[in-house]
Amino acid sequence: MSSKNQLIVKPEKFSTNKIFQLESGEKLNGFELVYETYGQLNQDKSNAILICHALSGNHHAAGIYSETDKKPGWWDELIGPGKAFDSEKYFIVSLNNLGGCHGSTGPGSINNKTKKEFGSDFPIITVSDWVNSQDILREELKIKKWLSVAGGSLGGMQALQWAIEFPDKLSKAIIIAAAPKLSTQNIAFNEVARQSIISDPDFEKGDAHPEKGLGLARMLGHITYLSEESMKNKFGRDLKKEKIEYGYDVEFEIESYLRYQGANFSKSFNAHTYLLMTRALDYFDPAKKKDGNLSETLSRSTCQFLVISFKSDWRFPPERSKEIVDALIMAEKKVSYLNIDSIQGHDSFLMKNDRYENAINSFLEADV
Amino acid sequence: MSSKNQLIVKPEKFSTNKIFQLESGEKLNGFELVYETYGQLNQDKSNAILICHALSGNHHAAGIYSETDKKPGWWDELIGPGKAFDSEKYFIVSLNNLGGCHGSTGPGSINNKTKKEFGSDFPIITVSDWVNSQDILREELKIKKWLSVAGGSLGGMQALQWAIEFPDKLSKAIIIAAAPKLSTQNIAFNEVARQSIISDPDFEKGDAHPEKGLGLARMLGHITYLSEESMKNKFGRDLKKEKIEYGYDVEFEIESYLRYQGANFSKSFNAHTYLLMTRALDYFDPAKKKDGNLSETLSRSTCQFLVISFKSDWRFPPERSKEIVDALIMAEKKVSYLNIDSIQGHDSFLMKNDRYENAINSFLEADV
Repeated sequence: MSSKNQLIVKPEKFSTNKIFQLESGEKLNGFELVYETYGQLNQDKSNAILICHALSGNHHAAGIYSETDKKPGWWDELIGPGKAFDSEKYFIVSLNNLGGCHGSTGPGSINNKTKKEFGSDFPIITVSDWVNSQDILREELKIKKWLSVAGGSLGGMQALQWAIEFPDKLSKAIIIAAAPKLSTQNIAFNEVARQSIISDPDFEKGDAHPEKGLGLARMLGHITYLSEESMKNKFGRDLKKEKIEYGYDVEFEIESYLRYQGANFSKSFNAHTYLLMTRALDYFDPAKKKDGNLSETLSRSTCQFLVISFKSDWRFPPERSKEIVDALIMAEKKVSYLNIDSIQGHDSFLMKNDRYENAINSFLEADV
Repeated sequence: MSSKNQLIVKPEKFSTNKIFQLESGEKLNGFELVYETYGQLNQDKSNAILICHALSGNHHAAGIYSETDKKPGWWDELIGPGKAFDSEKYFIVSLNNLGGCHGSTGPGSINNKTKKEFGSDFPIITVSDWVNSQDILREELKIKKWLSVAGGSLGGMQALQWAIEFPDKLSKAIIIAAAPKLSTQNIAFNEVARQSIISDPDFEKGDAHPEKGLGLARMLGHITYLSEESMKNKFGRDLKKEKIEYGYDVEFEIESYLRYQGANFSKSFNAHTYLLMTRALDYFDPAKKKDGNLSETLSRSTCQFLVISFKSDWRFPPERSKEIVDALIMAEKKVSYLNIDSIQGHDSFLMKNDRYENAINSFLEADV
């Protein structure tokens, strides 16, 4: 831990040679998962929390890599000493999901069969596949049962899937800014993002970082992560230069912001992973096997649930979280629900907020 | 008029050689406007209504071109004999805006200087430029004063601009599903659409119909025209084929619909026009000269106003229409406001609805 109460962390790697069966019918000949841990596992191994990441996330959820590192993990506002997920009390595990592009086996990994990168040959991965691979990591870490599995957005869907698939392997599920399945509009936005990648000739030529297509996907994503109000507060109709120039170069600050975000993202993120993550979102529909009955789907779950939504989130608005809550109530499960006043839109789940922190803290503290 | 109460119509053309000064500082050496008229101009020329079109609209607002023509104009549900804009009572004029791609001077026209298509050399056109060019058409038609200027979306902005710029040239303004200026989020969506066009290598090579880029822009547009609810009702999470195939081909009906809409649109619409139209939207901000005071901006207006919004419209939601209404009330103008229950989203303005029809009808009938 650094002097500024900041964790210094180091990623670790787990690997297995065992054949891993995927929901699609495809198989992986083993895989690697990169992960980080924060805090200490207690003697009876009862304080472990699994953090699941969202679309563009990775294993680096908290802390910094060195004293001079200026960019902490993506959920550093909530994970660390004295924070919502308190690393002084809990042993927190955060991994890069299978199919990711930050060290775990994914489209950028070498396919042993061809000795080349998987690229578009990498199989489709579903939320259930992730949960299954995370369960293998759980075994490796010799944790019998997670105190909690937690995540926001697509991460929240993984927490929900854990509760459904491994009812006896977690005590508490924290499902934040999520939905029990995508809406038609959600799928529609994903499809535009995918088409912008797939139709980029650079991607067709094999570039895993097609600047234009992946940039467009990210620009579009950003609009859905922010609320209308937060965009207005941040950028309004402010011009980039003093006067309107009457053309298609950047005129408004928001254009500049989006272009920057798009360009930056496309340099580092793997386009195949982006496709894969959006498809995992589309396919997620755990109640499908029970004819859409989520309550029945959750009937075997034994954990406690904390469901959190944010009022200004229009990607997965509060009504979507309430669908989960209602199903849990119908199934007579223990559930707490919090709808938090925050103007940051879907991105609110990434940010510190007293009510938000306290809710997670108390939920984790409460008796199992 | 056909036997089925359907107008048979024929486009006409107006052309001028006069130099036309644009808001950007650029000039056009004359221009052509293609337009259609429905109904008869009465003797004292007091029954003329100008219809202004939105982003992808054109002059063909109503009727069909022949008895066998199966595709009526884009606002045929509201314009025609006995309809909201009743062609048995009114002389209705509908034009293709300057910069359009359906016959009026635009990026697809021949630039006399170069003897080639204007393409990206076509100047930026603003809502004020449109209103000025429409006023030249008004003179040509020897109409002293429009009974009404009406439009939805970007068309409504033109009606608003008419009331501001030519207060003595219209008696009634009908402003539907519009806003006094774009929100940051509106601009953001436009920017993603533009970038998808501009970054398409086919567009860079001079193709005015870049299949991928323009298709993407249209796909994205479609999402913002429909409400979440109407998308859900129409497509839900229905699969295109019987089973999930685990890949990036079309899986869901909504994907198929969007791809079809995109591909279809990109064949016929000019990409430069699309850029131009979205920029006209971005720049529209009539109150800017009065430090954002819309009420003061409208102080010289003398016409009556009908402002209509739709509850499920999230592109220009009711609150945006109310900004116009509030400014008009502050300025002590005559304004009626209607917020219509319709689940079709922004596209509601294109569709028949009793309350909607009656409101327009009564407003047009009322004494000036």
